Amino acid sequence: MHEDPTVGELSEGEILRRILERTGRASAGLLGPGDDAAVVAVSSGAVVATTDTLVHGPDFRLAWSSGYDLGWKSAAVNLADVAAMGARPTALLVALAMPNDTRVSFVEALADGLRDACDALAPGCAVVGGDLTASDTLTIAVTALGDLDGRAPVTRSGARAGDVVAIAGELGRAASGLAVLFDRFRDPDGVPVPVDPARLRPGDVGALEAQLRPVPPIGLGPFAALAGATAMMDVSDGLALDARRMADASAVSIDIDPLALGDDPASALEGGEDHALLATFRKEPLPSGFRVIGRAVERGDAPVLVGGRPYGGPGGWDPYRDWDASGG
Amino acid sequence: MHEDPTVGELSEGEILRRILERTGRASAGLLGPGDDAAVVAVSSGAVVATTDTLVHGPDFRLAWSSGYDLGWKSAAVNLADVAAMGARPTALLVALAMPNDTRVSFVEALADGLRDACDALAPGCAVVGGDLTASDTLTIAVTALGDLDGRAPVTRSGARAGDVVAIAGELGRAASGLAVLFDRFRDPDGVPVPVDPARLRPGDVGALEAQLRPVPPIGLGPFAALAGATAMMDVSDGLALDARRMADASAVSIDIDPLALGDDPASALEGGEDHALLATFRKEPLPSGFRVIGRAVERGDAPVLVGGRPYGGPGGWDPYRDWDASGG
Repeated sequence: MHEDPTVGELSEGEILRRILERTGRASAGLLGPGDDAAVVAVSSGAVVATTDTLVHGPDFRLAWSSGYDLGWKSAAVNLADVAAMGARPTALLVALAMPNDTRVSFVEALADGLRDACDALAPGCAVVGGDLTASDTLTIAVTALGDLDGRAPVTRSGARAGDVVAIAGELGRAASGLAVLFDRFRDPDGVPVPVDPARLRPGDVGALEAQLRPVPPIGLGPFAALAGATAMMDVSDGLALDARRMADASAVSIDIDPLALGDDPASALEGGEDHALLATFRKEPLPSGFRVIGRAVERGDAPVLVGGRPYGGPGGWDPYRDWDASGG
Repeated sequence: MHEDPTVGELSEGEILRRILERTGRASAGLLGPGDDAAVVAVSSGAVVATTDTLVHGPDFRLAWSSGYDLGWKSAAVNLADVAAMGARPTALLVALAMPNDTRVSFVEALADGLRDACDALAPGCAVVGGDLTASDTLTIAVTALGDLDGRAPVTRSGARAGDVVAIAGELGRAASGLAVLFDRFRDPDGVPVPVDPARLRPGDVGALEAQLRPVPPIGLGPFAALAGATAMMDVSDGLALDARRMADASAVSIDIDPLALGDDPASALEGGEDHALLATFRKEPLPSGFRVIGRAVERGDAPVLVGGRPYGGPGGWDPYRDWDASGG
């Protein structure tokens, strides 16, 4: 056997063993991997649950993302959804569907990325269960669970006119990273090629890291809830689109100050995948880590305003509308 | 627009709306779909969580399975894993990755199947969240949550020598259904073709239903836990393989009585996907719905015995070892 075998050459049990020796055991897991289901401790009468999938093609390219990157990102995007409810992530379940020619070293790196993202972004959270399946398309479907520690969840619908609108985390950096990849690391036919470090410019590394291994402010989710956040959500599809969703759910309009969006307001408004936390608070001062970007106002014709004027930009990413399997 | 549009012609929001108007709202969901994460009620200090994925190719063929079948089966196989812990299923999260040319009517039927399986197999359980992604390979990744209602989970490791080994549900029927499909509903090149009702023989309908829309005994999971089950698991990969897993986890051997396996013991031992419940109890009488199929004995060289003799059959299905993308 090749010293780095493919998953098709190994049994399911052997692949699983190699994953589990990396992901370890959840501190929050009363019963971890190895049975029909995991059992996760819950401190109060509710559990927060969310699922988000990364699919080869629309969500990532193997020329650009390592196994480690994909493990990290698939954890991070789900942890961010838990944090956006004001909850503390406690456990991940990971369903991996992989082509038979996937190298086991790739799967091991993916497991390392999952573990390291949990350790760095949500200490105490770990992989407690999962599923392995063969597929023609590499697919990583993660479910994250979280604990509200007795608090009410912070939904999208609690913003009221007069609330301060705030952000924790980056805006537009992940999209800049994606632009670096699309603009400079494809061959003449548009096919992705690996990143050549010699061709990176100042700022590229940070942008690529934001795209490939995002570091959303997970710990600030429960922190914002304790500080009285009235509404909160994860900015995954761009600030303009996600602010519109919050405005619609809360029956307010959200007026964003363009001067609060840094030196590239257009990227900050339209760029997706940063997984910043968008939250509203009754008043300042804000909990540390959050910065003011605008204000909720009485509901008007436009759900989102920028500098007091209705925002008419394209408004973010839709996987069905925007992805063309034949491109890129 | 075509009156049955593809998912690529609609926005993510519109596809989601059509799914949610079918799956409805979870009674156990304190907060259902529409926010970053769902919030599910938990009656005690723990939640049971499991994930299982159906992938086009290794797990199903669209010539044989309707959208409704796939919704039903993807719910049923996950509900069975929750029940096998002795827990009551409370919520499903559904990650759908679909080609852009998938018809919306197919997605709607899938949502109907998810809802109907919950209503029929686990009343009170419903879809509380999910994710939509574009993919070249139709993939349905479901996570199920469950409530132990204050009981300890029933694991695979609690069987002791002398325990009665019992089954609730079918053995070998789903595999018979798969054999009907593979043997009689493929064209000369081995490509699946739709089932022609005129070519069905007596017994085929029940076998096909067991394969395509399994009805595992979900309610008997918590019931067995209350009745003192010492170990329990879902038989998804065939009795021989799954009994070996229980025997290994419990450090016993399991001696199966071939006369208890019906008129086709080989199918009962090797056929997968029935999602029967395999459980052990200290003594008879068993809770209704379970029947004796053997006994746990002191651990010997062979983890599984049949009629007192070591079992040397192939031992069940492994997706990486057994699936050949080029076949069937």
